[in-house]
Amino acid sequence: MKKQQFVVIGLGRFGSSIALELMALNYEVLGIDRNEEIVSDMSDLLTYAVVADASDEEVLKSLGVRNFDCGIVAIGEDIQTSILAAILLKDLGVSTVIAKAISVLHGRALEKLGVDRVVYPERDMGIRVAHQLVTPNLLDYIELSKDYSIVELKVPMCLNGKTLTEINTRSRFGCSIVALHRAEGIIVAPTGMDQVRTDDIMVIIGSNANIEQFENEVMHDN
Amino acid sequence: MKKQQFVVIGLGRFGSSIALELMALNYEVLGIDRNEEIVSDMSDLLTYAVVADASDEEVLKSLGVRNFDCGIVAIGEDIQTSILAAILLKDLGVSTVIAKAISVLHGRALEKLGVDRVVYPERDMGIRVAHQLVTPNLLDYIELSKDYSIVELKVPMCLNGKTLTEINTRSRFGCSIVALHRAEGIIVAPTGMDQVRTDDIMVIIGSNANIEQFENEVMHDN
Amino acid sequence: MKKQQFVVIGLGRFGSSIALELMALNYEVLGIDRNEEIVSDMSDLLTYAVVADASDEEVLKSLGVRNFDCGIVAIGEDIQTSILAAILLKDLGVSTVIAKAISVLHGRALEKLGVDRVVYPERDMGIRVAHQLVTPNLLDYIELSKDYSIVELKVPMCLNGKTLTEINTRSRFGCSIVALHRAEGIIVAPTGMDQVRTDDIMVIIGSNANIEQFENEVMHDN
Amino acid sequence: MKKQQFVVIGLGRFGSSIALELMALNYEVLGIDRNEEIVSDMSDLLTYAVVADASDEEVLKSLGVRNFDCGIVAIGEDIQTSILAAILLKDLGVSTVIAKAISVLHGRALEKLGVDRVVYPERDMGIRVAHQLVTPNLLDYIELSKDYSIVELKVPMCLNGKTLTEINTRSRFGCSIVALHRAEGIIVAPTGMDQVRTDDIMVIIGSNANIEQFENEVMHDN
Amino acid sequence: MKKQQFVVIGLGRFGSSIALELMALNYEVLGIDRNEEIVSDMSDLLTYAVVADASDEEVLKSLGVRNFDCGIVAIGEDIQTSILAAILLKDLGVSTVIAKAISVLHGRALEKLGVDRVVYPERDMGIRVAHQLVTPNLLDYIELSKDYSIVELKVPMCLNGKTLTEINTRSRFGCSIVALHRAEGIIVAPTGMDQVRTDDIMVIIGSNANIEQFENEVMHDN
Amino acid sequence: MKKQQFVVIGLGRFGSSIALELMALNYEVLGIDRNEEIVSDMSDLLTYAVVADASDEEVLKSLGVRNFDCGIVAIGEDIQTSILAAILLKDLGVSTVIAKAISVLHGRALEKLGVDRVVYPERDMGIRVAHQLVTPNLLDYIELSKDYSIVELKVPMCLNGKTLTEINTRSRFGCSIVALHRAEGIIVAPTGMDQVRTDDIMVIIGSNANIEQFENEVMHDN
Amino acid sequence: MKKQQFVVIGLGRFGSSIALELMALNYEVLGIDRNEEIVSDMSDLLTYAVVADASDEEVLKSLGVRNFDCGIVAIGEDIQTSILAAILLKDLGVSTVIAKAISVLHGRALEKLGVDRVVYPERDMGIRVAHQLVTPNLLDYIELSKDYSIVELKVPMCLNGKTLTEINTRSRFGCSIVALHRAEGIIVAPTGMDQVRTDDIMVIIGSNANIEQFENEVMHDN
Amino acid sequence: MKKQQFVVIGLGRFGSSIALELMALNYEVLGIDRNEEIVSDMSDLLTYAVVADASDEEVLKSLGVRNFDCGIVAIGEDIQTSILAAILLKDLGVSTVIAKAISVLHGRALEKLGVDRVVYPERDMGIRVAHQLVTPNLLDYIELSKDYSIVELKVPMCLNGKTLTEINTRSRFGCSIVALHRAEGIIVAPTGMDQVRTDDIMVIIGSNANIEQFENEVMHDN
Repeated sequence: MKKQQFVVIGLGRFGSSIALELMALNYEVLGIDRNEEIVSDMSDLLTYAVVADASDEEVLKSLGVRNFDCGIVAIGEDIQTSILAAILLKDLGVSTVIAKAISVLHGRALEKLGVDRVVYPERDMGIRVAHQLVTPNLLDYIELSKDYSIVELKVPMCLNGKTLTEINTRSRFGCSIVALHRAEGIIVAPTGMDQVRTDDIMVIIGSNANIEQFENEVMHDN
Repeated sequence: MKKQQFVVIGLGRFGSSIALELMALNYEVLGIDRNEEIVSDMSDLLTYAVVADASDEEVLKSLGVRNFDCGIVAIGEDIQTSILAAILLKDLGVSTVIAKAISVLHGRALEKLGVDRVVYPERDMGIRVAHQLVTPNLLDYIELSKDYSIVELKVPMCLNGKTLTEINTRSRFGCSIVALHRAEGIIVAPTGMDQVRTDDIMVIIGSNANIEQFENEVMHDN
Repeated sequence: MKKQQFVVIGLGRFGSSIALELMALNYEVLGIDRNEEIVSDMSDLLTYAVVADASDEEVLKSLGVRNFDCGIVAIGEDIQTSILAAILLKDLGVSTVIAKAISVLHGRALEKLGVDRVVYPERDMGIRVAHQLVTPNLLDYIELSKDYSIVELKVPMCLNGKTLTEINTRSRFGCSIVALHRAEGIIVAPTGMDQVRTDDIMVIIGSNANIEQFENEVMHDN
Repeated sequence: MKKQQFVVIGLGRFGSSIALELMALNYEVLGIDRNEEIVSDMSDLLTYAVVADASDEEVLKSLGVRNFDCGIVAIGEDIQTSILAAILLKDLGVSTVIAKAISVLHGRALEKLGVDRVVYPERDMGIRVAHQLVTPNLLDYIELSKDYSIVELKVPMCLNGKTLTEINTRSRFGCSIVALHRAEGIIVAPTGMDQVRTDDIMVIIGSNANIEQFENEVMHDN
Repeated sequence: MKKQQFVVIGLGRFGSSIALELMALNYEVLGIDRNEEIVSDMSDLLTYAVVADASDEEVLKSLGVRNFDCGIVAIGEDIQTSILAAILLKDLGVSTVIAKAISVLHGRALEKLGVDRVVYPERDMGIRVAHQLVTPNLLDYIELSKDYSIVELKVPMCLNGKTLTEINTRSRFGCSIVALHRAEGIIVAPTGMDQVRTDDIMVIIGSNANIEQFENEVMHDN
Repeated sequence: MKKQQFVVIGLGRFGSSIALELMALNYEVLGIDRNEEIVSDMSDLLTYAVVADASDEEVLKSLGVRNFDCGIVAIGEDIQTSILAAILLKDLGVSTVIAKAISVLHGRALEKLGVDRVVYPERDMGIRVAHQLVTPNLLDYIELSKDYSIVELKVPMCLNGKTLTEINTRSRFGCSIVALHRAEGIIVAPTGMDQVRTDDIMVIIGSNANIEQFENEVMHDN
Repeated sequence: MKKQQFVVIGLGRFGSSIALELMALNYEVLGIDRNEEIVSDMSDLLTYAVVADASDEEVLKSLGVRNFDCGIVAIGEDIQTSILAAILLKDLGVSTVIAKAISVLHGRALEKLGVDRVVYPERDMGIRVAHQLVTPNLLDYIELSKDYSIVELKVPMCLNGKTLTEINTRSRFGCSIVALHRAEGIIVAPTGMDQVRTDDIMVIIGSNANIEQFENEVMHDN
Repeated sequence: MKKQQFVVIGLGRFGSSIALELMALNYEVLGIDRNEEIVSDMSDLLTYAVVADASDEEVLKSLGVRNFDCGIVAIGEDIQTSILAAILLKDLGVSTVIAKAISVLHGRALEKLGVDRVVYPERDMGIRVAHQLVTPNLLDYIELSKDYSIVELKVPMCLNGKTLTEINTRSRFGCSIVALHRAEGIIVAPTGMDQVRTDDIMVIIGSNANIEQFENEVMHDN
């Protein structure tokens, strides 16, 4: 399968982070920004980086944007350019277009114009951070649905040396430890005999309510 | 255990997202912003919301900021106020202070000043988005370590009706399906007899290399 | 039939001209503008005039915009607000939305968002003026199609006293004089015996090429 | 007859629209604007395009403006330059000068200074649009006088297949159908036997009051 | 004879100087300026002083400007308002309108619009100052024509005690001393016997060339 | 006597007027302004014209300003540079320095710093204009003292053909006609037999009160 | 002797520091600043604090500035207001006026206008800091003349326990230790028997050259 | 001992004063400023002067800042750059870093980040000036401690010719005259027989209270 090619419009913090990660994952990336200094800083780090106005159709055509598989509109504060660039990418035939929105109304406009996915980076990261703040042992989590999550919890001192049978998350809290991660490696589907140690990471799956109860009753050191 | 109380300084997109999510999680939140309009919009949504300059020590004292357990400095572009507010929160005795940084140097300054955790929302969200872009079926993921991840993959049409034994991720790719999630509910630790259906979500654990190989060889519809 | 009600967003030169003409035609008009001074100037001239931000959904709702039959987005230079206001009008259920565009790309965005008619006032008036400039006797015209027009031409001195038979536009140029307009009144479908007089207005229908030929060969005083 | 030559001062939306239409009509056009970027964009589209300050007499002289037949002052918002440029064009001997005005007082100043015709593009287009809005079948119209118009109306479904005798505009409403326009061509001075079909265009002449009555009583589909 | 009434538009340095001098000469003056602070400073010094936009016809009407005999448009840098205010004064029927111009083209526009007299204060004062600089004893002068002047010269020490016969300006230089002015009073048409004293002021009439020659040959102390 | 050389700092309306008049009077002038465009416009019209910051001592030295006889500080609105330039001119040894002031306090500062003469062009011209406005026949005047003036009055129609004896200004009004000026030339010290004609110019000397009385009683056409 | 009263114009960092120190020394201080917020912050700390424009003569008069003994013009960057305020203070009869200058030319202007002392805070403090940087043990110093100073030096470890006879600054370096300062008190004119201890402070008087030699040869710990 | 090398960041009034004094003391100085004009002015006066952004780590590295012994952050108003530059200097290993602060909070941040000494030039100079203002004979002083000072006082006329025994500062006021400085030279540790003369400078050591008493009772001429 031919590797995807990406065009990232707007090389601010969000756009440049996407572009650099895509480069790190070995994809080709064309970065576009109106700001000369930013483009010059990025030019050694991306496959191509050009100074251009992404709301100018002629410019995007001359850059061959139609040949890219995926376009990311990562323009920060300028809703107008964000919307015009998104239209142009779709019209030029870029098959997947995702765009950053800074407000619900901005997001709605992007969706109406056919953008495939709208991202709200600051809002989404704010939600993640809020969850971590109220669950001190929470390292990361995946929301499987509105009610179910997989969470990654650091084992607190109070559980050091306990076996999974002793902790017994399934019968007491209705949630399952599907993996243990420690310096030496990962134990997938650990058995009841496996002992947890401080700073091990437990991967737990369950309903949010159950996980929260487990957190509150068992996971605290004091 | 008494519930934590939070003070969020800066109610832009990131700060308001944290504050609102904390409210949704039933915590008390004091929001502070210099912008009157923003504070007025948030005043019904937070426990308290005040217009104040967070780099003014007297102001923070008079707001009783010293009684809060956790402070979040979510100031956007104004590095100076971000730094001064962070110093004041630490000096006033707020035990946990986390702060948003907009550059590596900004982050380094915050860490030197004793901030407990520095967050880069746009950079981190950019990384997440990049991973989802190159793995079209990837819904979300947790990085367990530099090499191991849990990923949430949508089952493509080509796997519809296959049993886990047929897919056989463990022996073919060295990674395990630890859960299946579908409309009717979650199957934790599914057996080899369980069939996957299009649009089920598989939760897979394994090394990044193995998961990627699985993705590339099995998960595509064409 | 119940009379239509109109909401005009943006009370600059174009918007206020529409609003005032609609008032003169005895319709009810709600005018909205962000500029307090403009609204205050218009408040005696329109049914209602309010200062409001038309990109704020709550504001439009509270003004009862959903009850209007037709919305005109006449915002001048601010493409962003123009687009957001257009989305909101459509979403609120206003059945006909027309909007002014200041560039082709702006117009394309508006069309994609479901705007029923996009107007380019300066461009369209520029075209009309150009036609009048090159045809000094041309007063006004309707383009029936790309090739056919009705034009209103002032009778030049050189034709004074001629009968339509003498001028004989139909056989010489393939176009018909369908009306004559003079101070005393209009002669619809004039006969060949009717004489034209200087400063009468002839209404002629025909192909553009034929009309132009007539203009060039017959209509000049020297 | 030697072809007219035009100088257009101000290449914004209105000025450039005039200039481009004049080019399309095969006239020579000199475009002048203070904005380098605009001039560079237009330079391939006009006979000549130069960056210049149109309120500088020496500049206009050196451009040979005195040799042009007609000058169009299409300056947008800068009343001062508009007025000074108009004076210069007249003083340099340009025989016809037309100018865009943005307010009544601006227009009055231009007239006093000898400008041959003052245009208000946004106001005039606003009036046209208002008429079209309240007469949904109205495509375009010419105001013959304060009371008489020629209008171009789309035939609604309810009239499909009717003969002109059946519709009988002349005796019922005192206005005449002077032409029918359909895909196949134009029927000038149609007879009573001619049938109209949905989406034909009727060209009607009459007093405004009569036409409005006709519209209201006959033209609606419901 | 009824006393004239004056309206001064623009109360900057030039306008306020006119207005105050007219007050000192016992005339009624209405001062108009857009700047609140300026108007408040002048309000005790003029008959009336109001904050108003002088390019707004309604405003000028409501101030009763039509009843004034003479209008002075003393607006500094804003050519646009200067021109619009001048038109309005003339249209409202103010019989004498004088206006300050800041450039030749501005002055030409004002004249075309019917302004009765155009003043260039800085240019005219510059010319006066230049003359005084090159003629150190020159106190003031009137240009009677292009070639003839009346000048006011301070008597230098070298002429102290000389009689007019000795100085003999008429036969030596063809110019006449028409008056002598000293602390004790004025001597009109002094005789040849009158002695001049240092610091007396001689009023001399003659051609510019003759006066200059007199200046150069006689008037210097060294 | 060697001709004076002048340096004019600030080439706005006042400065350039002085500089150009000095050139017209055949003196050498160095013009200095911070504005490149202004200097370029003046460079052909003055002996020398340079772009320079007149508050920079090194710059003035390198321009050889110390060799000039007279410096004119004609800086418009920037009091700071006006003051600093005046100090520098005096310190560099320019023997006569005159400066324009825009307020009384500005003027006082300039005088304290040793400026030889302070000019208020707009104020002084405002006073002149006020006098001309209230005396419609007044063309120009010299104030000999607080109470005495020489005035230049246009002869009104009502005096046409009168002899000076008939007019009899001296015994009726205590003021003397010292000269008559008409197209054919000047009559100095006219006799009682000399007739005045409409549009002759009378040069009259007298106390202000007497002249005013003469004006009011005799000089009006109606 | 009646206590002096001070007026401080400009309450920035320099002005407020003077004002507050004068208050601490029990003098009455009137503080003036154009900035409302600054004045409000200082109003509890000074005898009087008012918002006023210090270049407005009427304002200074109405504040009774003429009754103050000493005026400090501590205006930061605005040379114009600094100069005008200084003139006004002198003219109003304030006997001592000191002013901050930000450039040599600014300082020269202030001196010409009669300011009693001109201070350059940043320049002077820069010089002090430079001296302390190159002499690490230097705490403070007084320049008695261009060549002689009194310096305050911290005793380094290497001199701990030495008697003044042993150190023998007078015969070896020609400079005298006139006092020793330690936690317990000051020893004025210490004898040769007095021992110095680490962290004592020696007050030394001598020529700069001698003190520097002493510093370099004796005072370093390594 | 190898001579110290200094890097001064920010070449405004304070920074340039340090840099120039260090040059005068024969040290090597690298000056850095963002402003091209400032750097160009300083380039002949410092060892090196470069235009650079001191908050850019790469830039500081490439300038070899790590090899300097001492860094002075003399940035005026931009707290952000001041803080970032200070972090970078410390991180790059510059052993002594001193920085200017413009507020107490700014100073606290600098101290937390490891800056060795924080200077407040305007505040400190304000304090010195305040002391001199209230003690008219005070030329300079050193604060030895909170209570003790060395002061430099000009001998007033009233003491002219008195011997130190007559003045008797030690027994009357408990403070000692440790030196006399006059045109001819310095008298260290003067005896009771030494006479003081007007304009001699006395160097006195004592408690602040004693010195103040001496000042008030003895030092005034009236």
